[in-house]
Amino acid sequence: MTIEARLKELGISLPQAAAPVASYQPVVIHGGVAHVSGQLPFVDGALVTGRLGADVELSQGIEAARACGLMILAQLKEVGVLERVERVVKLGAFVNSTPDFVDQPKVANGASDLMFEVFADKGRHARAAVGVPSLPLGAAVEVDAVIAIADA
Amino acid sequence: MTIEARLKELGISLPQAAAPVASYQPVVIHGGVAHVSGQLPFVDGALVTGRLGADVELSQGIEAARACGLMILAQLKEVGVLERVERVVKLGAFVNSTPDFVDQPKVANGASDLMFEVFADKGRHARAAVGVPSLPLGAAVEVDAVIAIADA
Amino acid sequence: MTIEARLKELGISLPQAAAPVASYQPVVIHGGVAHVSGQLPFVDGALVTGRLGADVELSQGIEAARACGLMILAQLKEVGVLERVERVVKLGAFVNSTPDFVDQPKVANGASDLMFEVFADKGRHARAAVGVPSLPLGAAVEVDAVIAIADA
Repeated sequence: MTIEARLKELGISLPQAAAPVASYQPVVIHGGVAHVSGQLPFVDGALVTGRLGADVELSQGIEAARACGLMILAQLKEVGVLERVERVVKLGAFVNSTPDFVDQPKVANGASDLMFEVFADKGRHARAAVGVPSLPLGAAVEVDAVIAIADA
Repeated sequence: MTIEARLKELGISLPQAAAPVASYQPVVIHGGVAHVSGQLPFVDGALVTGRLGADVELSQGIEAARACGLMILAQLKEVGVLERVERVVKLGAFVNSTPDFVDQPKVANGASDLMFEVFADKGRHARAAVGVPSLPLGAAVEVDAVIAIADA
Repeated sequence: MTIEARLKELGISLPQAAAPVASYQPVVIHGGVAHVSGQLPFVDGALVTGRLGADVELSQGIEAARACGLMILAQLKEVGVLERVERVVKLGAFVNSTPDFVDQPKVANGASDLMFEVFADKGRHARAAVGVPSLPLGAAVEVDAVIAIADA
């Protein structure tokens, strides 16, 4: 089954791949590895902003992380390698957090669970999840990725 | 000398490899490189929590970073590649910090010095050390790693 | 044109490569990829300290990020691989930020634009830019890098 078919089966439609907010590229592929820039969470076209522990509920944070994951997939599709994902190697999850919010792993699971849903065992990855005081445009979560890509 | 023998010589016993707090893997190996998930500091089985610049002293922070490093080694052993470490390539150290704490490098040395003790020149790595306002479960430090693994 | 010639053309003189603040290496090269440790911003030999959203203006933050980028180039030159840069693969930008500062991408552009100026298309990279509450020695910005290096 193709990944596109799997996404359809899951009822997932990918967002429009976001243009970089600045002078860099969404994806650089070198040596069979795609480095995906930090992606922000767009739900129904709107950026999810705010801070976990303050104005963003845990469930909203999880959904935001999942939205970051969907944007990672959209970026891979945009550069034509979505069907050639060999392994999701590493996710880096940056969670906009108050000093007393400590559930970054639960939030990051929004992205992690998505990768497993879509890619099964190939979606199992290493991860770092940390709190940050602020993110671009006030985003609630940012996730970057290292993805192994099979030869064409 | 094996790494296990070197650890014994140093009087180091590795902790039990911690299960992931969430839906990801502790280690993913691809293309001869092990990506180790962010590890938290366990000393005598208890998580070291708190914040540098507030309730965690510098010496405790250094010990916590060392404990993160030990957990990285434990994870490598768990997946059977500890004896095949070819090079510690990169460590990422996230230090739970108040806004006025600026000694992240000293804290991160707890992990860096461990790698040099255990692997000698193969343990010399690139590093980024930054402050963060909060970490999973309230941990004082989190360290992730990129480790080159020799062919079996 | 060599990179040294291009730097001269741009009127850029690289800073003295900073010694690591701690027990790690500025650059580790493995498998054709240079991992550059997080570099701090030195302008005219002085560290740029402070926090975006408080005592550091946006323009100063951009200059600081550019200074981090110059230090990355200086470190590559120091280990003899500046002329062999094949691709700037990824930059990680950590911006010392108040909780309400959300222009990390604009700040990080200081480093990103430099890479494009110096390396043209080879300088186009993936990137993650996040806010942090504190950095080593009170630095305003820290940038690390993954750089593909061509065979000698």
